[in-house]
Formats: sequence, structure tokens, C-alpha cells
Amino acid sequence: MKKVVLIPDSFKGTLSSAKVCEIMSKCIHNKFPDCEIVQIPVADGGEGTVDCFLQAVGGQKRSVTVCGPFMERMESFYGIPDTGDKTAVIEMAACAGLPLAEGRENPELTSTYGVGELIADALEQGCRNIIIGLGGSSTNDGGCGMAAALGAKFYGEDGEAFLPVGGTLKNIKRIDISGLDRRLKQTCITAMCDIDNPLYGANGAAFIFGPQKGADPAMVNRLDAGLRCLSRQILTDLGTDVSELPGAGAAGGMGGGAAAFLHARLCPGIEVVLETVRFEERIEGADVIFTGEGRLDYQSLMGKVVGGVAKYAKRDGIPLIVVAGSIDERTGDIYGSGVSAAFSITRMPVPFKEARKSSEENLERTMEDILRLWKVIDEEYAGAPL
Amino acid sequence: MKKVVLIPDSFKGTLSSAKVCEIMSKCIHNKFPDCEIVQIPVADGGEGTVDCFLQAVGGQKRSVTVCGPFMERMESFYGIPDTGDKTAVIEMAACAGLPLAEGRENPELTSTYGVGELIADALEQGCRNIIIGLGGSSTNDGGCGMAAALGAKFYGEDGEAFLPVGGTLKNIKRIDISGLDRRLKQTCITAMCDIDNPLYGANGAAFIFGPQKGADPAMVNRLDAGLRCLSRQILTDLGTDVSELPGAGAAGGMGGGAAAFLHARLCPGIEVVLETVRFEERIEGADVIFTGEGRLDYQSLMGKVVGGVAKYAKRDGIPLIVVAGSIDERTGDIYGSGVSAAFSITRMPVPFKEARKSSEENLERTMEDILRLWKVIDEEYAGAPL
Repeated sequence: MKKVVLIPDSFKGTLSSAKVCEIMSKCIHNKFPDCEIVQIPVADGGEGTVDCFLQAVGGQKRSVTVCGPFMERMESFYGIPDTGDKTAVIEMAACAGLPLAEGRENPELTSTYGVGELIADALEQGCRNIIIGLGGSSTNDGGCGMAAALGAKFYGEDGEAFLPVGGTLKNIKRIDISGLDRRLKQTCITAMCDIDNPLYGANGAAFIFGPQKGADPAMVNRLDAGLRCLSRQILTDLGTDVSELPGAGAAGGMGGGAAAFLHARLCPGIEVVLETVRFEERIEGADVIFTGEGRLDYQSLMGKVVGGVAKYAKRDGIPLIVVAGSIDERTGDIYGSGVSAAFSITRMPVPFKEARKSSEENLERTMEDILRLWKVIDEEYAGAPL
Repeated sequence: MKKVVLIPDSFKGTLSSAKVCEIMSKCIHNKFPDCEIVQIPVADGGEGTVDCFLQAVGGQKRSVTVCGPFMERMESFYGIPDTGDKTAVIEMAACAGLPLAEGRENPELTSTYGVGELIADALEQGCRNIIIGLGGSSTNDGGCGMAAALGAKFYGEDGEAFLPVGGTLKNIKRIDISGLDRRLKQTCITAMCDIDNPLYGANGAAFIFGPQKGADPAMVNRLDAGLRCLSRQILTDLGTDVSELPGAGAAGGMGGGAAAFLHARLCPGIEVVLETVRFEERIEGADVIFTGEGRLDYQSLMGKVVGGVAKYAKRDGIPLIVVAGSIDERTGDIYGSGVSAAFSITRMPVPFKEARKSSEENLERTMEDILRLWKVIDEEYAGAPL
């Protein structure tokens, strides 16, 4: 084993993708000390997204003072990975994340204004390719805050411009994007989005994600109504219909806002990662690729990490091993899609809340067994030319 | 993969060792159709022991009419495997097993007489190497029934010979083995015994195994007292002390009886299997050995299947893969002992009583992944000379 590529997802809620990479890497070095290991922890658009990209390709982290969820000034950051084409990676959680609203969660009041400020700073740095991680937000403002920070104007009944938040979207009577930062026109913006929830309705941002942001049922209804209004206004004033856009509901409607105000494309996170890190170059000459996720199931091939990576592995004929927290009975045709073998780190039949406590150890031990098996077969052919 | 040896234990209570062999074999043939597969399902001394030996080396099954647990005449059997040295394999469950007493379980009344008759038939057939599987019994007679069928005499207070059973061991006043079948003197007898419980006492046959044979607490006490008496009588009349013999408590004291009356050696079942099937010859030229058990834990190396097989694998440098129902956190130094890699068939964190329902499918899928991994690495070196 001379070159290995690690590109795992997180084991959601249990192990971050960076931690999975770290454990896999340690195990590989134990057995194959001279092996080249390429680590690409997959970001999911939420907290940690910037670090994942920077670990995968190197780069710098920029500190910027922006507005937090309640418009308070705060130190935030974003990343400029070494992709050679001035790409910026922004995780909205860095200034609009739920933990920042801890103890006073209120999606009627929080704003994505700071996200717009981060984007403005990236534009100022010369970045014309911007990746926005949508995840872990405290907001429900449809991205209006972000747009306002970039020059969009929202007018109320009284003709005055104001900053809309979740609770005041219904007050928007006119949207004027003529003042949007001109540099945006030359900028490709991609929002990392792994869900397909629409902007409003029973499966929309308010009903599905409002509660976890602190909204009680009455507030959920109000938030949903607000997004409905915003959608109508966007159609009227921008001529863009985001009412049925899959993923528009992400991050309190930021998905729809990014599409409408920034002409962002919404892409599965893994596709953005694979593209940004130039995966097909990174896997050249690799003996094997390891990926993983918390739960390998029938959705894994559909827009998730395993599916995305498997396509490349299959095309280039590189063995792909999946290491998962658990493997469902039905996984779709993973083998036909490029997966060589899949192993679960679950080693004992105990309920999840018990099993998850040993996740790090179980991952380590399972990797050890896989690598031992590899070494055993390797050595059966030791010295033999390829 | 040209030659594979399969030598799994059962997954106790879930999959018989024969079933595990069958599934492993099917999976291997799917991936490597030309592979030679040697199947050695490990017998545990209980029901199915004869079949395991016959499957492992071939041979014949002999039908014999003997006494069942309540002295009723019944069709029974034993095996003469093709070992070339007239070995007989007798599972006591074939005529003294618990299912044979179904509905009327009573270890005070049941007898091992039929086992003695099977042994007598084996001697008649010229067998001078006899393996007795102790397991799944309905009896608690210390093997007195077996000994009586082979010519031993048990005298009561009144000087009359009688057939002792669990409830009448205390009535034995004299044991006379002068009439024991003379052929026993030239016969090597080995009892398969995986437990180390003594004959009597808190960890003895009556207290530990009496309840599952139908004894209530009062009966358990009586049975224990009976075995205590038997032990004293054996010491007095045979000069043999089985009071502290580990494993004497097996099969209602048959372990002690076999040692005392037949000079049997008590051996872990796996050692008997490995010896009888001439394992070191069977693994010559094998690319890999697969073994397995329900639970890989710190006891696995100590007298269990994995430990027994690992010794041979390590000595001959043959890769050994363990496939287990579950793998404990602590397994002892399995890798240093000869195990190459160990995999659990548990693929989801659910409690055992849920997980066990999918045991066959889980084993199949785990074997598939292991073999896929093997094939992938194999193919990296395709065409390369060893």
C-alpha cells in the first residue's frame, strides 16, 4: 500500500470527518509507515466546513469582524484554500450559527447579515469563486440579511428601507437589487446543500427546522407565512421563482435567498468538495480509497459522500472501501456503483446510544482488521511485480 | 484463492457450525468458483456432533437399538468417521439427550445406560478409539448407567445389584468394575468437554445444570448429595478421586464417570476435532483459514475453537480470519496468537435479540465484503508469480 486517499463523511453526531480521517490515518501509518496518505475530510456545510477544506488542500483562514445573529459585532472567519483560483469557503455558521444564539434562540430576530459581510470581504480579496456552507444556522430570514449586507434594499409599507429578519419578512413591499455589489456578477457562487426541502410549507424551512432553532408552533406558523411572502416578493421584483426550488428551505430559507439574490447554484456538499479539491487528480496512483459515513443505506448512493466518491473510484478502477457506523439491509447497488467492500464498525449487538460511546475505538479496531487483511494478502505476493 | 479451510464453531443458539460452513462455502464459491474448500464444522459434543465429524472426514453412521433416558428401547446411532484407525464418535445426546425426555424431564430418573450400549457396539465393531460427546443430556447419574451397560456392578445396602440413576446414587454401597468389558483396556476414550465444572458443590453438575434438566431446588440438593456419595464410593472402590477433576460435572457427572470408569481423558472439543481430522494435514497448501464463533472474547483463546485453530495457523504461517457474531472489547492477544484479522457480522447497533434474526444474512454479507476485499487485492497482483 503506497498511496491511500481518505475522504470520509462525518459519522453524524458522533465523529467529525476530521476525526475519522485522523483515526484512519493513524491506523494506516501503524501498518504501512511509508504509505502516502491524502486526507480529505468531507465538509457538510455546517460548522467545521472551512477547516475541512483547508485540511484537504491547505490555505489560509481570514479573520473578519462582522455582525453576529443579533447584529452584534463579532470576530468571524472564512477560508481561502490553495486551489489556485481564488476560491473562498464561507460557513454561515461562523457568524449566524445556532450556538452563537445560545440561551436566546429566536429565529424571528436573527439575521444572516454577517454572512453577506464575509462574502463582501472575500470579493474584496479578489475571490470570484465562492462556496457557502449552509448549515447549523440560527436564522429564518431567507438570506435577506446577507443580501442587504451586499447592497440589496428591502422597503416596507412606509417606503423606508429596513433589514428584514424572520419575523418581518411579511413587511417587505419592494426589493431592489440594483445596488448589489457589482463584483457578484463575475462571481460563481455555490451553496453546499444536502437537503431538498422547499422554502415554505409542511416540508419547508419553518416547519422542518424551525423547532430546533427555538420556534414554538405559533412562531413556526408565522415564520412559514413570512417565507411565503418573501417568495412572492422575489417573484414579483426579481422575476425568479424559488417556490419549488429543492433546497431553498436550507438554512432558514438561505438556500432560496442565495439562489435568488446571488444566482447561486445549490449543490450536494460532496460534489462541491470533489470539484474543489480536484479529486480526480488527487486519486491518481492511489492503491485504495477509504470513505465512510455514519449510516450506509439506500440514500448513500444518492447525492451523499459514498455515491459521489464511488463514481470516481469506478471510473478510474481504484478500490474503494467504505467504513460505516452501520450498514442497512438495503443499500442499493453499492458494489455495481464502485464500492469494493463495506465494513461496519459495530462489533457488538447493542443499541446505538450504547454503541456510539465506543465509536473511536471501534473505528480504530475495524480499520486495524481491514489493514491486517490487506497486509496478509499483500505479503502472499511480496516481491512479485505488479 | 485456491484452497480454503473452513473450521467454524457454532454461533451458539443461533447458527450451527454446519450452517456457518455452508454459508461461508457458498460465498467463497460465488467469488472463487475454482477454489478448493475444506469444510470442518466444529462439533461441540452435543447434538450434531456425529454429523460434524462425518462431514469433516466422511464415514458411516451406524444405527443401534439401545435404551433411552427412561430405559425404553429406541433407535439410536453413532458414527465411524474415515480416519483410518477405527475411531467411533458417540454423542450421548443420541440416547440420553434432553429432548428425548421432553414433557417428562426428571434427572432423578434418567439414565445413561444407552450410551454404554453404544460404546459396546463400537467396541464390537473393532473401534479402539472412542470419542464421546458430552452435551445436551437429560441425566444426572454420574455415568453409572453407561458403566452398568458395560459390565460394572453397583450394589445396594441389601447386597443386590441395581441400576443407579440420579435419585439413587446415594444407595450405592459398593462398586465392582471387575466385569467391565475387557476391550476397554485397549481402548483410548476421549470425552469432549468444554467446561470445567466439578462433580458436585455450588459449581457442580446439579446446581449449575440441574435446573435446565427439570430439577427444582429441592431436587437439585438431592442430586448434588447423590453425586457427592458417588464420588466417595468411587474413591473407596476404584481408588480414583474425581472430586476436584475439572469437567467432572459435565453431562450430569458423566465427565467424572467417564474418567473414573473408562479412564477417559477430558479434552476441549476443539482439540479432539483438530486431532481427529488431522488438521495439520488438511491445512497444507491453504491460502487462508476461516473460523468463527458467536462471541469473540477473552476466553476465545483459552480452550475454544479460535485458540485451538490459531495455534496451527501461526505455526504454519497461514492467514486466519475470524468471523464472529460479536467481538468484545477485550479479546486477549488474538493477533499475536495467530489470528490475522477478525470481523463481526453485526452491521447495525441493535440489541442481540433483534440482531440474531438476521444472522444468516449478516454472515453472508460480511463474508461477501471480506472476499471482495480479498479479490480486489488479489487482482492488483493478477498474473504475478508467488
